[in-house]
Amino acid sequence: MRYSPLLTDLYELTMLAGYLEQGMHERPAVFDLFFRQTPYKGGYAVFAGLESALCYLEELRFGAEDLGYLDELKMFRPDFLTYLEGFRFKGSVTAPPEGCAVFPREPLLTIEGRLAEAQFVETALLNIINFQTLVATKAARISRVAGAATVLEFGLRRAQGPDGGLSEARAAYVGGVRSTSNVLAGKTFGIPVMGTHAHSWIMAFPDELTAFRRYAEIFPDRCVLLIDTYDTLKSGLPNALTVAAELKASGHALAGVRIDSGDLAYLSRQTRAVLDAAGFQGVKIVASNELDEYVIESIRAEGGRVDIYGVGTRLATCAGEGGGALGGVYKLVRIGDEPKLKLTSDVSKATIPDRKRVLRAVAPDGSFIQDVLTLDGEEIAPGDLVFDPANPLQKVHIPSGAQFIEVRSRVMEHGARCAPAPSLEDSADRCAQELQRLPDGCHRFVNPHVYKVSISAGLNKLRLKLLTEVQRMISS
Amino acid sequence: MRYSPLLTDLYELTMLAGYLEQGMHERPAVFDLFFRQTPYKGGYAVFAGLESALCYLEELRFGAEDLGYLDELKMFRPDFLTYLEGFRFKGSVTAPPEGCAVFPREPLLTIEGRLAEAQFVETALLNIINFQTLVATKAARISRVAGAATVLEFGLRRAQGPDGGLSEARAAYVGGVRSTSNVLAGKTFGIPVMGTHAHSWIMAFPDELTAFRRYAEIFPDRCVLLIDTYDTLKSGLPNALTVAAELKASGHALAGVRIDSGDLAYLSRQTRAVLDAAGFQGVKIVASNELDEYVIESIRAEGGRVDIYGVGTRLATCAGEGGGALGGVYKLVRIGDEPKLKLTSDVSKATIPDRKRVLRAVAPDGSFIQDVLTLDGEEIAPGDLVFDPANPLQKVHIPSGAQFIEVRSRVMEHGARCAPAPSLEDSADRCAQELQRLPDGCHRFVNPHVYKVSISAGLNKLRLKLLTEVQRMISS
Repeated sequence: MRYSPLLTDLYELTMLAGYLEQGMHERPAVFDLFFRQTPYKGGYAVFAGLESALCYLEELRFGAEDLGYLDELKMFRPDFLTYLEGFRFKGSVTAPPEGCAVFPREPLLTIEGRLAEAQFVETALLNIINFQTLVATKAARISRVAGAATVLEFGLRRAQGPDGGLSEARAAYVGGVRSTSNVLAGKTFGIPVMGTHAHSWIMAFPDELTAFRRYAEIFPDRCVLLIDTYDTLKSGLPNALTVAAELKASGHALAGVRIDSGDLAYLSRQTRAVLDAAGFQGVKIVASNELDEYVIESIRAEGGRVDIYGVGTRLATCAGEGGGALGGVYKLVRIGDEPKLKLTSDVSKATIPDRKRVLRAVAPDGSFIQDVLTLDGEEIAPGDLVFDPANPLQKVHIPSGAQFIEVRSRVMEHGARCAPAPSLEDSADRCAQELQRLPDGCHRFVNPHVYKVSISAGLNKLRLKLLTEVQRMISS
Repeated sequence: MRYSPLLTDLYELTMLAGYLEQGMHERPAVFDLFFRQTPYKGGYAVFAGLESALCYLEELRFGAEDLGYLDELKMFRPDFLTYLEGFRFKGSVTAPPEGCAVFPREPLLTIEGRLAEAQFVETALLNIINFQTLVATKAARISRVAGAATVLEFGLRRAQGPDGGLSEARAAYVGGVRSTSNVLAGKTFGIPVMGTHAHSWIMAFPDELTAFRRYAEIFPDRCVLLIDTYDTLKSGLPNALTVAAELKASGHALAGVRIDSGDLAYLSRQTRAVLDAAGFQGVKIVASNELDEYVIESIRAEGGRVDIYGVGTRLATCAGEGGGALGGVYKLVRIGDEPKLKLTSDVSKATIPDRKRVLRAVAPDGSFIQDVLTLDGEEIAPGDLVFDPANPLQKVHIPSGAQFIEVRSRVMEHGARCAPAPSLEDSADRCAQELQRLPDGCHRFVNPHVYKVSISAGLNKLRLKLLTEVQRMISS
């Protein structure tokens, strides 16, 4: 996937021009990318999009056409355009691996480099990481609630633009969705593709049975019949049984039937019973129609017998309360030798300054206890007091026996990757493992457990000091 | 913008392979693209995306790489891949112009052609039209409620993927948004680009005043200062006044100030009062922070003094109840000489068969009364009875004095455009005119007037006949 260097807000360019003119463009700077609230009012987020982000950073360069357009804007001086011609990202990136469980206020990406390059990449990084993390999280919620059933995504037709469908399929795979209907996603990312036929296939034939037979002739070993065009139980299912018997007689097997409307819990139970009674235990039931984690949960609670959930619109658009967008932001945390803090009208939302580490306290059984942000180089140990970043009066001791793992690592240095990209499969495996290690309550959809992200004593002290300085500056 | 031929659901390809094998691929077929519910629970939708869709259709062809990938899937026969090599869209398209007000159940695009080509383009057309129509509608709602203030979109960082940001900027312009922060959208579509600086610009300097001064030096005639980094009224505004005075003294003028947090109604009133008292009536106030039509309505109701609303996340992601996705569908309405109807478990949702016209009844003063779908070639006149497609018992007479305008025209014939693309500016103008002609109640956010879309007597008769036939087939 290629990203245009112009995939950015204009203000990144005006600021870049400004820093250049002020001779500040090469000052060392550190930016954090983080979000403040878990999406979907859930208990966690699944980090995704890193490989896309690294591709963007590696390939970032302005071509002649891009520079020509910027020149036409009559906003920038020629020496700035000359500077852009040689502009590359040569900074470093620290990040968790894709599939990692992540939480509010902890830095996901940290970008270090010259002020010019570290600032400029803000918009594109936010676009990529915000959306893929949002999708991967939705996919993880859906996949987990589907239990032993697998999940197929086919949201392309309702996705927010062509690429909404493409990067969505990628991130959904990281989150646990096993296949996609999107052929371009299959080609681009190697995700298994699935799909059979639409209602229009049925309607293009004189009757449903003929339509089923013709489809089975062409794909005798991967035939999934859509049985709700006219009436699922009275027409589609009996006709599918006929074809299943014919396929069996000729040495093949009907792969499945798909139900795309009506009461999916009831219809899937009835369908399973009829199929089983006729000896077709192997025929899978695919269900679809505005599914999401809540609907799947209720289908399962009502004893629905679904083997594959086809999820479209609500996954592709990250629908649901607290969905739609991950409010990720990108904030300057250090420039030159100075740690920086951004205050807002709500003090509890002040940023967390300086270059940091993200440590995860893990119990002896491997389960995650909480995360702690520390200053770079600061050591912490079980028993230490750590602080709530929203309110320093709120403090806890790290449980004794906890071990720490480093959540993030350096993934890019001087503009070059530190290691080859892991496979998408590896990222999906990691996601599955991470979700197992979360406290159970994090998976609850309503009022989930709030996983703690604390700051170390050193970081807390620095933050309070900067907070006081900023407040003094305002009131002076 | 280029679209890959693989930007499609796999089932379009399996069906294509099936139709080819059955020798049905060249049968004449007609498909309608339509939606069933207005987005955002509003009173109308704004049609957008047509030019993007026509580009897709014109450029549709499979390259060697695409065919290579399909071959790797080991799902298709070699003769199918050979067929795909020469596959082009040579059908016709009937559609409203972009910016047209459109309503549930009326066909937006009608695609006529050989079954193969008309079926295949389903997924991509839905992706393009669903999203752009959804965005244009949101943009129209926001722009209208902003009144004399203008709207700038800067949703790229929260958009659903890179292209979510790109086609969003295009569609938002059709709906009435006057500029974008997205530089790529500026280059691709010629939309005016805007942008100034981020909080990080301020934080990169020792203090706010210095940061403002340095920015004003570089862009003395287009300088908009972000005044909420530390404290809007105590710090940002006084410092902006200082710079405004300095700019004035040197023969320039401060363009504006931007407020990005806090109580925007209150802060904008205070800011306006302070600016005016200091003689800076010309300095514009830009407000932003999770804005949408509802927030803007309340800011205006509270006497907010905003000149430019910067709208991001909620426009880019089409947020809000009934938003997120336009549920557009693509249905076969005729094959060969047979009109077709698709029944669902809810009879009121049965499709409307056959090739049709969309006529708009217009009052003598130019305002829109209602739309009527008729059979191709069927004539209707004021006074005629027309029927509710959801319930044939519900019928009305077309008011006397009404005149009819044809909502749609043939925009593509034999795979070629019938006319050059209108400018985006023309589409935006059309949108503004259309919204003026809607019944006032259509603009209400809560329980808006339901604009009637009826079907003619001829279409109603055909539909009831097909409905009876399908129901007889199921029960037999």
